[in-house]
Amino acid sequence: MPASMDLAAHIRNVPDFPKPGIQFKDITSLLLVPDAFAHVIDTFKARYTAQPIDAIVGIDARGFIFGSALSYAMHLPFVPARKHGKLPGKTIEESFELEYGTDRVAIHDDALHAGQRVLILDDLLATGGTALAVARLIQRLGAEVVEAAFVVELPPLNGRKKLEGIPVHSLVEFMVD
Amino acid sequence: MPASMDLAAHIRNVPDFPKPGIQFKDITSLLLVPDAFAHVIDTFKARYTAQPIDAIVGIDARGFIFGSALSYAMHLPFVPARKHGKLPGKTIEESFELEYGTDRVAIHDDALHAGQRVLILDDLLATGGTALAVARLIQRLGAEVVEAAFVVELPPLNGRKKLEGIPVHSLVEFMVD
Repeated sequence: MPASMDLAAHIRNVPDFPKPGIQFKDITSLLLVPDAFAHVIDTFKARYTAQPIDAIVGIDARGFIFGSALSYAMHLPFVPARKHGKLPGKTIEESFELEYGTDRVAIHDDALHAGQRVLILDDLLATGGTALAVARLIQRLGAEVVEAAFVVELPPLNGRKKLEGIPVHSLVEFMVD
Repeated sequence: MPASMDLAAHIRNVPDFPKPGIQFKDITSLLLVPDAFAHVIDTFKARYTAQPIDAIVGIDARGFIFGSALSYAMHLPFVPARKHGKLPGKTIEESFELEYGTDRVAIHDDALHAGQRVLILDDLLATGGTALAVARLIQRLGAEVVEAAFVVELPPLNGRKKLEGIPVHSLVEFMVD
């Protein structure tokens, strides 16, 4: 396990983004500090070496940043989960709720296979809708969701409750909604 | 320098995506093969250790996959370049041409500083319009574009010509448009 670090200090708060009243937790400031980014990746690597996984699914687009670096560090397959229409070739899709209406997320139907132990990785857990849809996609391919991991979690938005039955892990919590 | 590998064999051709007549070069198949993904990252790492860089700018969204893993491998800052409206906080923007109309790409105005040697990284060089706009953003912040690097290049689309004055490097070429 890497030595401890105050990761929260490297995450910038951007008020009123993407709309008035939202306190946006911006991980791009953390990416500018190689020690902080390495700390995130190495901490996840230690956790998922102890609790083995076979593949990593990163959620478009900030989940790609952490998921692909972790895949490289752990020498594991990386699978991108993307919005409807973005992935070429054959996909399976699940809908998830937005504030107004629904959207769809997809993965390639040949990206995972039955019995694989899979980690879901994204930058931030808010309401958990997208991560839940991604978990269902993984399960539809017969693979197991070992855990859904996030750099940042916003506990007031109850993402853990929405992801009930799926283990959730996060590195930093902010008590804002 | 890592041993040689037939990277082209790991890149899937998807006909008629995103529209009829296009032969889409899909790097997600490469991401499923850890030896191939590691080969890409380690090859870039060797090149930009010999020709030093201070930061990596990855282009939304597949450029994040390669750019962030390389940033982790090289212990360098990672800067995401994203479409208009996606980055929180203060940004600078450049327009680029699409087949019909224009779009805008942005980076944070505090992500780079004068004198830094910067690598642009994306999965694929086609017409080069987005990469050129990203190069201009980097130069507007006073930083130097050392090179624009791509996993795949489609020479018939003349991206190198569009990027005139900026060194271009790619690992695999496909002679399709």
